[in-house]
Amino acid sequence: MLNVHLVPHTHDDVGWLKTVDQYYYGDRNDIQHAGVQYILDSVVDQLLKNPDRRFIYVETAFFYRWWKQQSSSMQQTVKQLVNEGRLEFVNGGWCMSDEATTHYSAVIDQMTMGLRFLNETFGPCGRPRVAWHIDPFGHAREHASMFAQMGYDGFFFGRLDYQDRARRMIDKEQELLWRASDSLTPPMADLFTGILPNGYNPPQGFCWDQSCDDPPIRDDPDLEDYNVDDVVNRFLTIASAQAAVYKTNHIIMTMGSDFQYENANLWYKNLDKLIHYVNAQQANGIKVNVLYSTPSCYLQELHRANLTWSLKTDDFFPYADDAHDFWTGYFTSRPALKRYERISNSNLQVTCNQLEVLGGPVSRNGHFGEGDIFSPLTVKLNSQTMAVAQHHDAVSGTEKQHVANDYARRLANGWQHCQVVVSNSLAALSGSSAQRIYCDNLNISVCPLTESSKKFSVNVYNPLARPVTWPVRLPVNGTAYTVSDAKGKAVDCQVSVRNWGFAVNELVFQVQAPPLGYSTYSVSLVKDGPPPTSTKYNASDGNNSQSDQPSGAYIFRPNSSTPFIISQTAKTETVQNSVVQEVRQWFAPWVSQVVRLYADSRALELEWTVGPLPIDDSLGKEVITRLDTSIKTSEIFYTDSNGREVLQRKKDFRPTWHLKQSEPIAGNYYPINSRAFIKDDVDQLTVVTDRSQGGGSIHNGSLEIMLHRRLLYDDVRGVGEPLNETSNIFPEGLVVRGRLLLSLDPPPTAADTHRPLAQEMVLQPLLTFTDGNLNPHTQLEFSGLQAALPPAVHLLTLTQWDKDSVLLRLEHQFQSWESKVNSQPVTINLQKLFSTLEVLGMSELNLSANQWKDEMIRFDWNTFHGYLPIIPFWPVGGTGGKLTDCQKWKEIV
Amino acid sequence: MLNVHLVPHTHDDVGWLKTVDQYYYGDRNDIQHAGVQYILDSVVDQLLKNPDRRFIYVETAFFYRWWKQQSSSMQQTVKQLVNEGRLEFVNGGWCMSDEATTHYSAVIDQMTMGLRFLNETFGPCGRPRVAWHIDPFGHAREHASMFAQMGYDGFFFGRLDYQDRARRMIDKEQELLWRASDSLTPPMADLFTGILPNGYNPPQGFCWDQSCDDPPIRDDPDLEDYNVDDVVNRFLTIASAQAAVYKTNHIIMTMGSDFQYENANLWYKNLDKLIHYVNAQQANGIKVNVLYSTPSCYLQELHRANLTWSLKTDDFFPYADDAHDFWTGYFTSRPALKRYERISNSNLQVTCNQLEVLGGPVSRNGHFGEGDIFSPLTVKLNSQTMAVAQHHDAVSGTEKQHVANDYARRLANGWQHCQVVVSNSLAALSGSSAQRIYCDNLNISVCPLTESSKKFSVNVYNPLARPVTWPVRLPVNGTAYTVSDAKGKAVDCQVSVRNWGFAVNELVFQVQAPPLGYSTYSVSLVKDGPPPTSTKYNASDGNNSQSDQPSGAYIFRPNSSTPFIISQTAKTETVQNSVVQEVRQWFAPWVSQVVRLYADSRALELEWTVGPLPIDDSLGKEVITRLDTSIKTSEIFYTDSNGREVLQRKKDFRPTWHLKQSEPIAGNYYPINSRAFIKDDVDQLTVVTDRSQGGGSIHNGSLEIMLHRRLLYDDVRGVGEPLNETSNIFPEGLVVRGRLLLSLDPPPTAADTHRPLAQEMVLQPLLTFTDGNLNPHTQLEFSGLQAALPPAVHLLTLTQWDKDSVLLRLEHQFQSWESKVNSQPVTINLQKLFSTLEVLGMSELNLSANQWKDEMIRFDWNTFHGYLPIIPFWPVGGTGGKLTDCQKWKEIV
Repeated sequence: MLNVHLVPHTHDDVGWLKTVDQYYYGDRNDIQHAGVQYILDSVVDQLLKNPDRRFIYVETAFFYRWWKQQSSSMQQTVKQLVNEGRLEFVNGGWCMSDEATTHYSAVIDQMTMGLRFLNETFGPCGRPRVAWHIDPFGHAREHASMFAQMGYDGFFFGRLDYQDRARRMIDKEQELLWRASDSLTPPMADLFTGILPNGYNPPQGFCWDQSCDDPPIRDDPDLEDYNVDDVVNRFLTIASAQAAVYKTNHIIMTMGSDFQYENANLWYKNLDKLIHYVNAQQANGIKVNVLYSTPSCYLQELHRANLTWSLKTDDFFPYADDAHDFWTGYFTSRPALKRYERISNSNLQVTCNQLEVLGGPVSRNGHFGEGDIFSPLTVKLNSQTMAVAQHHDAVSGTEKQHVANDYARRLANGWQHCQVVVSNSLAALSGSSAQRIYCDNLNISVCPLTESSKKFSVNVYNPLARPVTWPVRLPVNGTAYTVSDAKGKAVDCQVSVRNWGFAVNELVFQVQAPPLGYSTYSVSLVKDGPPPTSTKYNASDGNNSQSDQPSGAYIFRPNSSTPFIISQTAKTETVQNSVVQEVRQWFAPWVSQVVRLYADSRALELEWTVGPLPIDDSLGKEVITRLDTSIKTSEIFYTDSNGREVLQRKKDFRPTWHLKQSEPIAGNYYPINSRAFIKDDVDQLTVVTDRSQGGGSIHNGSLEIMLHRRLLYDDVRGVGEPLNETSNIFPEGLVVRGRLLLSLDPPPTAADTHRPLAQEMVLQPLLTFTDGNLNPHTQLEFSGLQAALPPAVHLLTLTQWDKDSVLLRLEHQFQSWESKVNSQPVTINLQKLFSTLEVLGMSELNLSANQWKDEMIRFDWNTFHGYLPIIPFWPVGGTGGKLTDCQKWKEIV
Repeated sequence: MLNVHLVPHTHDDVGWLKTVDQYYYGDRNDIQHAGVQYILDSVVDQLLKNPDRRFIYVETAFFYRWWKQQSSSMQQTVKQLVNEGRLEFVNGGWCMSDEATTHYSAVIDQMTMGLRFLNETFGPCGRPRVAWHIDPFGHAREHASMFAQMGYDGFFFGRLDYQDRARRMIDKEQELLWRASDSLTPPMADLFTGILPNGYNPPQGFCWDQSCDDPPIRDDPDLEDYNVDDVVNRFLTIASAQAAVYKTNHIIMTMGSDFQYENANLWYKNLDKLIHYVNAQQANGIKVNVLYSTPSCYLQELHRANLTWSLKTDDFFPYADDAHDFWTGYFTSRPALKRYERISNSNLQVTCNQLEVLGGPVSRNGHFGEGDIFSPLTVKLNSQTMAVAQHHDAVSGTEKQHVANDYARRLANGWQHCQVVVSNSLAALSGSSAQRIYCDNLNISVCPLTESSKKFSVNVYNPLARPVTWPVRLPVNGTAYTVSDAKGKAVDCQVSVRNWGFAVNELVFQVQAPPLGYSTYSVSLVKDGPPPTSTKYNASDGNNSQSDQPSGAYIFRPNSSTPFIISQTAKTETVQNSVVQEVRQWFAPWVSQVVRLYADSRALELEWTVGPLPIDDSLGKEVITRLDTSIKTSEIFYTDSNGREVLQRKKDFRPTWHLKQSEPIAGNYYPINSRAFIKDDVDQLTVVTDRSQGGGSIHNGSLEIMLHRRLLYDDVRGVGEPLNETSNIFPEGLVVRGRLLLSLDPPPTAADTHRPLAQEMVLQPLLTFTDGNLNPHTQLEFSGLQAALPPAVHLLTLTQWDKDSVLLRLEHQFQSWESKVNSQPVTINLQKLFSTLEVLGMSELNLSANQWKDEMIRFDWNTFHGYLPIIPFWPVGGTGGKLTDCQKWKEIV
């Protein structure tokens, strides 16, 4: 008996063509018809009409909005549905995060937040057993590793390379075991992974949503066009074809799609009939059994089949849905938003939460106002805004312009919110309630205070568990300043002329800040060589002989494999003083770069400024920076996965199938979240990025990174706008600035450099300013730790969990193979960790903090050991019987 | 306090862009998103969620389909909602009939059928109190008269001439008393009539259906774009503007539109909020009260206001929605469908139902099979098909081609169904079970039996209550025949050569049939002056200086006011024999005409054949026939209303407002359902038509009738297709044939001729054939009446009502002023009416047979007596208080 699991579901983007709140309310239906409030209303209604019906819900960002507005009797009803397994949460994070452009720390935070809400609202029955990333455009190994460590039993997704899928269909390897870490002991990072048969859509002809036009089941013989026989026959044909490319006698069909089930009656009424009429054919000897199901129920049946599954150890990047359609553009799309998300993670999520803990209860309600109130169902605004930004159409850059603006606005609001907490906390820690000023526009060298004040102080808060040295660059109008540190010692500082912005000059000095603490610097007015070249690809306009695919928000497709060099020569300027050496280069009016080396720095800084990209030639532009070296790379290079483990990449090659390369550039691009490197036996050149970017190694010894892109055509993947990034504020197009840090090391010790370097790039010191003289009793320096943590250990999370407890995450940040010293195990004494907090008790949780570690028992799966070559045929297996209902929930509840 | 009655409603066309069953199921949503099954599912669900909510439902054709498929518990739930007045039926006929192209007998039948279903399902609480014709394109006085006689308390509609509306808004005369008959004693045909403020749509910005894009109410202050204040202010502005053009302190808003409420939650959720937030403003002194309501509740409040209302005695034709947009084309659109509907009414509805009664129970289950089974909830198929055809996008010709085909197919199916009943009944009445053959294609002179048989008999059944003489024309291949009547007496017959079709010759003879009965004729093979001219208008292609409006299915707009004469001369042929004199004329390959005068005939017959209309000049064509006479008409002419009372028309004039004429032809067209005439003191020329057609009198002494139209542009009123009428069967375009009967009489006696003439045209004899010799015991003649009824009395309905009773309608068919003899009252003795039926008892019902006549108590309304000139100002009145709920239902239940 073939069991067909029908999984009713909706895919609700946390912002895409509309903003997240527009989607929630169903506003701006002229852009896209979608209203999540109505989806949840309708699904609950329809579930109550027939106990066989099932539904899964995914995005807690929406569910939370809805739940808040329900009456207590409706809440009780929903709890009952959850307890009975009729409504099941899958994935359950705040959003379905992007996998190519997110940083693991932000992903863990957003998952934790969503899962916590479900846990506190529904208890164990609300805990998702299945990770569900049906829409992201390629899949990161680090995401699979995180999901495994969060306790998920399995993972389902919809998009993978079309060649990969074709091979897996033939070999029945669309279900597999993913070993997602080369450092964690199996099965710690093993994740059973299933590839859904139709992306996440229903089979052709069986979409009964209000947004679809497929024929409904017409079963009244008195009316025209009775079609039950036709529907049943079409369904049996599809089910049989699907069963032929999967291993067991269970198959899954996703019955839903984007924002479907707003009127769930249409779906369920027809699904009820489908189940009824297909199963009625069992009396005629048809061996097909259809049932309402959920991914966890389906997964359970796969587990019961007790088969041996193939093993995968690489990742699912890049994603191509056809020969000339590589979704590698979005690795770089909207570079300004990508940077703003990254720095917001440092400020809003990490620093703000740390300071809330370190400052104590007064941080939430102090001199500068009130922060978030703790209650089980209140989710902090700063955390919400960061969580929403992880969505696969947020930081990915694949949303409409007005939605990108909304994400940015939310981050700015979140920061407004955090400033209250930071001010309260710093007041408590320093003993000074002087007004703190936040110069949010230092990235464009704007800070009214430093530009006008004759005396001010700078508080430098360092969220890392190790001391840092950091160059402070402030716009000023004076020509000479003195700077002294917390101990009153003079600090070397230099003023140099700036050639753009409002202020005339720039004051530069290096500061040092203690672990998880701050140091305060006082500033007083006294008086008044050849770098890498920037090149570009012209974007394809979708109009050449091989394919009509143009570059767009998702897709990268240059119109030539040879980039155009912007300029062989550059106008240059040199600055050299005791603090920094700089070469300032102008390649074109819209491309400039500063090459910097600070005193005692481990890395060379390339500060690039690109834009507005000219489009008067009617060609989109995708600007890369290319580092050409003499390193012998043998077409191999390395990129990180979500800012954590590093994977090896090889040009024109995929580890698990024989690649037929059709796009020599775009098909060799991979996401770079925090670093990429090339190496040979002697040298390793590591580039640390300040945001997620796309890049590749197209030539021997070369590493290229895409910095900015501006496109004139939509790439026909739904967003419906060219990625042109103009607005009232920047009508000429967007100017983007960023930094790359280059480090050249011997390969065996390179990680000892790039691991801390990348962490410093991710978690930057937060600068706050106070005008005039400080109160003499002000405590100018503070560290929350008794001592710096060892280099291998990263303090990933320190956040208030509830009134009396904090959530602490400590992470070993080195892969097992990359450092002789730092890859070793490390022991930490928690009692001796904090300088001001006493540890009264401790319980270990899973990675997402929604389950006690010792209660986290996951399905075990059989696999072959080691790397598997392509296996041409696989026997069918599975449990034999007919599944009458999903029994999973009886076991769980 | 201004009370705003929000009326949630859906307008569900019984076929238009999709067929009626496609609309029911929600099939072919690619054409139009609409699924009535889901609307009713959803509305019932949502009504249950809040007892304040109301909904009205209109089209019983759909409600019946839905009801049949509901569980008994759901049926119980719906009954409860109806009993509590939360679900209210309005109008309640099988469909919302067209008013310009329907015949009163078919309208009464379809209303009776729908109202009967409601009565038998829901009892008195299901009886609609309000007639609701929100969409038909102009309003007939006869419809208002029928509604009054059916017991409705009031009537609401949405469309009227834009100039008429403008005047009525200024004068606050959008609510009025319509005196809908010049013959019935007031208030018998008085109907309170309300013109809805926005057609039948919600006010701008307040459409919350899934098909609309208006902003939802966003009342969560934690989310973006809180808009409650904006919504409330916009609503108050609109309510206040609306109140300014109506008389009382109650106003109505139709919250719905075409096929809305498929997901009723969207509407109700936002309406709940609207009511809550607007009424909350009462605390701030705002004198507006919003409530869920129904038309009957609103009507009751108007009645309570006890005002004096203006009186209207003419009708609402023609309808123009702008200066060059007269909806007068559909009076003629799809002339073949219009004729098929008319003859089907005669065959399916009248004849078939009469014979079922006369033949007794064996008619339903006899030698030739089984007819409809009687049960309260089974509606006869032949009646259903006729009822559906009355819809305002059916016989009107304003549907898509595939839908027109569906209506025709249904009528053909209905006829297949009836043939069983007719055969059974005639077998019972004649005592012969010989096979009866139906020559359905006699209209195109095709009948295989008569073309090949050497001996056959013709049964002529006459559904009228008076004997008729009728010319029978049969295609034959012999050159000489003998015909004998039921008594064996020879009948004069003639064979003439035909010049088209399959058969070589045509056999013509006059037959006579008794009242409500038949006569049988035997046929045996023996051996082997200047008429009116046809002219045409070229249709507007929407491309001239005054307006872009082209002619289309709805709209008539010729590109010139002078018609093009097809040909001044005609090829002619003359036939003259003892039965008939004919002049056959060919004006063009696509226009021909036969002018006929039968022996003893009261009228001249013009048989026209038009088509396929040539379009190789890329111009649409609208073919008229024009009768030019020396009658001095003074720009006055007369047309009937739905085949019953006759109204006076005057060129470029409307009785109730000062017309600014902008379309000299189209703006002077009126619907002709059965007759039109022109007259002076001496002569009256009456034209009786065989279907509904448009016509006018543009010149003195002239009467023109539009016969056929073929158009190349859509007229942008939604149908989305040009009225081109091509299909596989007639790829070159449609050929249409029809008849006009002309009678020239002295005006005082003209009605004595045209009343019976028109009835004979509407209810034609049904011919059935039997091959070979008849059984000698066959009863060759039969009459169901003891004697013919007097000329003034028309037997409108004789149909089986249930197992033991029949429904009989007798009608005085003369207007009070039109005949000295026949306009007088008449008395009928029912006991002596039928020859084979005994009358055991009798109860008088209202016109629609859903209420005992003596229980029909309608609202009384104050009006001025006599004809009212335009009144420039009217004082505001009304009951003063705030209406908290609609109390109507408490009184009714």
